[in-house]
Amino acid sequence: MVRENEIRAAERAVEFLPSSDAALVFIGRIYTPWTSRMETPRQGRHDGPTCRIEVFEPWVAALEGLAQFERIEILYWLHLSRRDLVLQSPANDGTVRGTFSLRSPARPNPIGTSIAKLVAIEGATLLVRGLDCLDGTPLLDLKPDRTLFNPIAPPQAGDFQIGDP
Amino acid sequence: MVRENEIRAAERAVEFLPSSDAALVFIGRIYTPWTSRMETPRQGRHDGPTCRIEVFEPWVAALEGLAQFERIEILYWLHLSRRDLVLQSPANDGTVRGTFSLRSPARPNPIGTSIAKLVAIEGATLLVRGLDCLDGTPLLDLKPDRTLFNPIAPPQAGDFQIGDP
Repeated sequence: MVRENEIRAAERAVEFLPSSDAALVFIGRIYTPWTSRMETPRQGRHDGPTCRIEVFEPWVAALEGLAQFERIEILYWLHLSRRDLVLQSPANDGTVRGTFSLRSPARPNPIGTSIAKLVAIEGATLLVRGLDCLDGTPLLDLKPDRTLFNPIAPPQAGDFQIGDP
Repeated sequence: MVRENEIRAAERAVEFLPSSDAALVFIGRIYTPWTSRMETPRQGRHDGPTCRIEVFEPWVAALEGLAQFERIEILYWLHLSRRDLVLQSPANDGTVRGTFSLRSPARPNPIGTSIAKLVAIEGATLLVRGLDCLDGTPLLDLKPDRTLFNPIAPPQAGDFQIGDP
């Protein structure tokens, strides 16, 4: 079973103080076939269903040039996730692992990252395959897949630094 | 030249309203050899210098099990970046591209993502290679590299969904 918000045997939660070291702005919304956490995939697949992303103004102009990339990195806010678990039991069997050793949505900053296949961009709308998030998930960022992107800006000293001094 | 905070020819900024749709908590800090944006690499390399990550309490327990992964995904907050550019000129030559078609640090939610080589974990300290951020960058998240991670939780209906209905 997927987690709703329960704490399972042997899991450990900490006191999560809702401080704000930095603030996020939602720049769009993601529409997927999955309306329940009980059916949402654990991991997206590039032959999976088409998902739609609507980018909000004033960010639509920032899509210019993105269509040339076959795959894009998508960051989104896992808005239903609890944020206070340090040890989790994904199989709900009494064994636990640290949150940072899992790709669970429950984490102190619940930011999901996916590499999706870009199908099309029309105006403010993107069609992609390979997502694994709930319908209605807030969008945080879009970037070219790191393996397809070559920096346009000239390199800097750090780009040539190998090993330790 | 790297951007400090200037706007270049043909670039476009929008009014950035400092709203807060969601709040981030800094869970650690990253120490790298680069103290100026003028020398920080454009892209990290796995044969680059060792960087150190200090995880803050109460999140240290969440590192349990991470050491088994050769590569980890690291999310961090690019705290010096401007957030209002929709068109950017990386080469500063009068030609522009949309922010989402670049991996520039200047973006509405300046979250950096890297795949780093994990060298060691000792207590609250990680040593990694492959980062490309400034010394002192706030840490947001650590996850296993997606290509090395197999979900422990049982699959869900969405995991088997191929194509469109």
